[in-house]
Amino acid sequence: MSIYGETLRLSIFGASHAEFVGMTLEGLPSGEEIDLAELQAFMDRRAPGRNEYSTPRNEADVPEFLSGLDGNVIRGPSLTAVVRNTDARPSAYADIRNIPRPGHADYPAYVKYGKFVSGGGQFSGRMTAALCVAGGVCVQLLKKRGINIYARIRSIGPVSDSDEWRLPMENGFPTSDPDAGKRMIEWILDRKAEGDSCGGIIECMIAGVPAGTGGPVFGGLENRISAAVFGIPAVKGIEFGDGFALAQMKGSESNDAFVVRGNRVETETNRCGGILGGLATGMPILFRVSVKPTPSVAKPQKSVDLETMKETEIRVGGRHDPCVVPRAVPCVEAAAAVAVLDAILTDGKDGEI
Amino acid sequence: MSIYGETLRLSIFGASHAEFVGMTLEGLPSGEEIDLAELQAFMDRRAPGRNEYSTPRNEADVPEFLSGLDGNVIRGPSLTAVVRNTDARPSAYADIRNIPRPGHADYPAYVKYGKFVSGGGQFSGRMTAALCVAGGVCVQLLKKRGINIYARIRSIGPVSDSDEWRLPMENGFPTSDPDAGKRMIEWILDRKAEGDSCGGIIECMIAGVPAGTGGPVFGGLENRISAAVFGIPAVKGIEFGDGFALAQMKGSESNDAFVVRGNRVETETNRCGGILGGLATGMPILFRVSVKPTPSVAKPQKSVDLETMKETEIRVGGRHDPCVVPRAVPCVEAAAAVAVLDAILTDGKDGEI
Amino acid sequence: MSIYGETLRLSIFGASHAEFVGMTLEGLPSGEEIDLAELQAFMDRRAPGRNEYSTPRNEADVPEFLSGLDGNVIRGPSLTAVVRNTDARPSAYADIRNIPRPGHADYPAYVKYGKFVSGGGQFSGRMTAALCVAGGVCVQLLKKRGINIYARIRSIGPVSDSDEWRLPMENGFPTSDPDAGKRMIEWILDRKAEGDSCGGIIECMIAGVPAGTGGPVFGGLENRISAAVFGIPAVKGIEFGDGFALAQMKGSESNDAFVVRGNRVETETNRCGGILGGLATGMPILFRVSVKPTPSVAKPQKSVDLETMKETEIRVGGRHDPCVVPRAVPCVEAAAAVAVLDAILTDGKDGEI
Amino acid sequence: MSIYGETLRLSIFGASHAEFVGMTLEGLPSGEEIDLAELQAFMDRRAPGRNEYSTPRNEADVPEFLSGLDGNVIRGPSLTAVVRNTDARPSAYADIRNIPRPGHADYPAYVKYGKFVSGGGQFSGRMTAALCVAGGVCVQLLKKRGINIYARIRSIGPVSDSDEWRLPMENGFPTSDPDAGKRMIEWILDRKAEGDSCGGIIECMIAGVPAGTGGPVFGGLENRISAAVFGIPAVKGIEFGDGFALAQMKGSESNDAFVVRGNRVETETNRCGGILGGLATGMPILFRVSVKPTPSVAKPQKSVDLETMKETEIRVGGRHDPCVVPRAVPCVEAAAAVAVLDAILTDGKDGEI
Repeated sequence: MSIYGETLRLSIFGASHAEFVGMTLEGLPSGEEIDLAELQAFMDRRAPGRNEYSTPRNEADVPEFLSGLDGNVIRGPSLTAVVRNTDARPSAYADIRNIPRPGHADYPAYVKYGKFVSGGGQFSGRMTAALCVAGGVCVQLLKKRGINIYARIRSIGPVSDSDEWRLPMENGFPTSDPDAGKRMIEWILDRKAEGDSCGGIIECMIAGVPAGTGGPVFGGLENRISAAVFGIPAVKGIEFGDGFALAQMKGSESNDAFVVRGNRVETETNRCGGILGGLATGMPILFRVSVKPTPSVAKPQKSVDLETMKETEIRVGGRHDPCVVPRAVPCVEAAAAVAVLDAILTDGKDGEI
Repeated sequence: MSIYGETLRLSIFGASHAEFVGMTLEGLPSGEEIDLAELQAFMDRRAPGRNEYSTPRNEADVPEFLSGLDGNVIRGPSLTAVVRNTDARPSAYADIRNIPRPGHADYPAYVKYGKFVSGGGQFSGRMTAALCVAGGVCVQLLKKRGINIYARIRSIGPVSDSDEWRLPMENGFPTSDPDAGKRMIEWILDRKAEGDSCGGIIECMIAGVPAGTGGPVFGGLENRISAAVFGIPAVKGIEFGDGFALAQMKGSESNDAFVVRGNRVETETNRCGGILGGLATGMPILFRVSVKPTPSVAKPQKSVDLETMKETEIRVGGRHDPCVVPRAVPCVEAAAAVAVLDAILTDGKDGEI
Repeated sequence: MSIYGETLRLSIFGASHAEFVGMTLEGLPSGEEIDLAELQAFMDRRAPGRNEYSTPRNEADVPEFLSGLDGNVIRGPSLTAVVRNTDARPSAYADIRNIPRPGHADYPAYVKYGKFVSGGGQFSGRMTAALCVAGGVCVQLLKKRGINIYARIRSIGPVSDSDEWRLPMENGFPTSDPDAGKRMIEWILDRKAEGDSCGGIIECMIAGVPAGTGGPVFGGLENRISAAVFGIPAVKGIEFGDGFALAQMKGSESNDAFVVRGNRVETETNRCGGILGGLATGMPILFRVSVKPTPSVAKPQKSVDLETMKETEIRVGGRHDPCVVPRAVPCVEAAAAVAVLDAILTDGKDGEI
Repeated sequence: MSIYGETLRLSIFGASHAEFVGMTLEGLPSGEEIDLAELQAFMDRRAPGRNEYSTPRNEADVPEFLSGLDGNVIRGPSLTAVVRNTDARPSAYADIRNIPRPGHADYPAYVKYGKFVSGGGQFSGRMTAALCVAGGVCVQLLKKRGINIYARIRSIGPVSDSDEWRLPMENGFPTSDPDAGKRMIEWILDRKAEGDSCGGIIECMIAGVPAGTGGPVFGGLENRISAAVFGIPAVKGIEFGDGFALAQMKGSESNDAFVVRGNRVETETNRCGGILGGLATGMPILFRVSVKPTPSVAKPQKSVDLETMKETEIRVGGRHDPCVVPRAVPCVEAAAAVAVLDAILTDGKDGEI
């Protein structure tokens, strides 16, 4: 379903080639101010057509609020906003109508719904514009509660950022090491020149989540965050803390020792990524997601004409990102923000912070 | 929350040191037979005390059905079963009452609920006994619909199973390569001898899921499966298909080409793990989860006395698995079975299969 | 929350004085045709400005589909439609900004959200235009499954329709006895002439619901239908079958005897309204709702200026229905259709019918 | 489904003739004390076998808490309790196995699940013992927040209580006018002597709910309360405030004028039952429910043998209440308490009160 959340309820609607995509977010505390310029800056980080390593599709991506906002104050039972699609060109997809693009939802959507939907329809990455409206609002509400969300590009193809976080990062290409960022851009542009694409890994840190936030079994922070983050197309894996590397450690290595720092209990290391038993430990929450390469590549690919059931070759036209990782960074922050604010409001901690 | 699902609704209740743990599962189709011996065999794969590499806590782990089962036929609006705790020894935890065990939920649960809960209470791995009752039922209902779930141990510490799946595996220690299995057991027993523990990676394959199963945005199979699987304590990462390795590929490498096999459309490779855009492609669904080492180790560890706020040392007594990976294998199958059956029933595909 | 349903999920968004109101409906079976002219006719029964006993606010109320409709075929994961607000005049409310209108949500919304929202905002009866899009689609899907929903005006003020149902009713003013309908219109116009308003009772019959549809405890048809129907502003009561009259009977009178009719089991009477234990009996489902008089009346009323906390008098301008009951008839059908289709899809009965 | 709630989540499980019925309640604030004697007194008001006008089935109805209660303090993610069934006699139902009892769920449950379930199984009024555990806890948490719930018997058959509320009422037979109560008991005993049964109306008042509690469309207090209250078998109607009587009034009569009392805004009358637009006005919430006569009557009734499809006569043995209204009074309070506490926690008002 396109609905997420427990106390917050986020519903995402519209489609890539419709008049707009939009979102309704219920359960927000009333009376809080939103900085609309800051929200727009957040949207701009995801918006297409901003540089040579993203799609030339050009969208203003300005959220228009239909309800729930009184000037810039949240007011009323639910916030609804739409983001217009002004530069959709469905005709680009006309000649590949019966031939599913490898790596896209075309084929299973054809089987499920009985027909192609132009441009990926509701499976398009364009839906993340709506996610970013919701997430951009939640990011601001969290910041007021002392909770900050940062995401950076950990790697693009074989090029890695440094292990250490350095803040603030330059948002246009968020790495801790600016040189690594430059090499990543080069890697992307080389793939673009080849008519190919690439993926990468995004790392997200959420600082300031109160210890105890979350719940057991299906209500844990890992469950909640992953259920939101996999709403971003192209994400194919998630790991918390040391994640897959933990599988190779001994318990005496993987456990994070408790220590006293000032008058606070902390852990000496943070291999658990700030989550134990589904609950926040009070240390920064850390997770990484794997983003697959953009499936739309200019190179010819093998596919099948679903009407004739003959194998054929497909060349995917349209305008595509050689690498969606930079634009996915604010989407990961948005998904994390919705998940964490929902967990906090569900815990009823809101008044105390 | 301890509730999962959309058309199916699974609620898990009870606690590790209470009279029992239990589960209620609603939304099952009525009139289908359950093979109770097969269910018990499934439970036994998770049950403790069965061999030298699992905890000596000894539990029969026989599900007792309170409602919803008429003989061995599902009948009525909801299935409720309990699994008794007969060998709980809360006294083992008496002297570490104010000292959180590293790697456990003790500390954040103390902050959240204001006090320790003996033996991890509702955060204990014991809750997975209830998950396995639900999952064991769903596994059988899926099998009747031509859907089979297999999980194997992909690695324990540095010891890996072969890349290829070989079926059937010997369930007592499910690897494709029996020699790898033996080396894994040795690795575990060596850690046990050291008073330490270890983790590993579990790989799960779900064969036969109809193409199109799932949904976009938050209703995708990745969202659904991860939201269920992180309900298993100790799971710290999940990746679908080639997962994190996809981040290093080019699009021309990572895309799975569509081909015709017999009268079916298939993909030549399955790097996407059988899921595109949240929907099943009809190829086997493949995912791997990272399981951290058992946090309870005999070796002394640093912790903090939460009453005095002094740093101290803790030695965790009680009876613990040197490695929970083998017992987590059926839990992963159970979580996957609940998630997939829920997705299938939500799609209303049930009648067609 | 503005979200309803279990297998179907209906989200209603927008506001009375925004650009539009809208709805997203997920979980519909794909591939079914919608008769768009029939849907428009359904919308027209609710639309304002059609006759002298409804508000002169004039809205075309044409649903525009953004996603989920391929021509007139349901296709894709969710159906989103908007209905534009073209004749909103928020200025009419300018001078009563701090004075809550009696009988409206103004006062509690002011307390909750900290300020007035023009024209009732998201509490307005205008939101039922979105409900009618969803309901109008569900009515058609139910009809294909042999399930028909009819609602009629049972009474307006002191004027009652006949006890017997006579079908088809003239939809413009749906009563079984046309003479009763004429007297009802007279009653309404007399109230309008006085600067007053009136309410009434709507009776709804749902024929063809398969025996067994529904569930126990909170999943019963009464729970489901009432949770949807109270989404219509002005509804203040609901009773199933003989409802409140049952409280005065003996068990030997109120029980419906089972009999054989042809090869079917039926009940001789239908005092239970076609529902026992939350499950459909297979007899027509019957319920009645009480609709309070339109709270906006031209007569002066006592209220309070919330800024000065002084008692004052208010005269409610704007354009209002002297009686919303006729326009509420399709809304009741819409709410019932969403509730019943959701229950049927949840039961997985869809394939069988 | 047997699950209710948004921030609170109540799951009811077990069955009438199983070892127990039970409930899990998640989302409660941690650290609050429960008065267990008061909870038991609440349970005792619903318990059977206490007097000559209730069923002779004798159950202690003592809730046993499995998790979530530390001494008498709420502690942990969820509260689970069971109530044992000690006096179930399924044999009493042996000879009416294929003959549905009029007025019970037997027939539609047979159609839905393919077979009879002894004693009504999960459709039994016995499930309300679990509801009363949850509701009894919520009643206490509400009381600490200044919110009090009272229900009284408004009428039994033709005998009515006085219009005015008089508090405190004698809980054993809660009417405002003790004489009316005595005449009601006489009426019940006369029906019992006839081998018949009777129903009645219960009126519930919830004082102290903060203005603004609730939400629009499907999140309104009427939607929430009715969705919970219809979880009590035998309830066939609900009306808020003047309910069905509003349908006969003019707007100038039905509107409640706003006035200033002390420094508070109140309404002069309370015809809306303390709810406008789904939101609490701050005045007492008032609703009435219709309870049908106990369907189990000793008198012979017409029914059908579902195996032979022949009409037949049934005499319902077993031990039954001649009137369930007195025992339903705490059930109505319980359902209302769960609904109102859930609405308050969802609004995040908890910290402020």
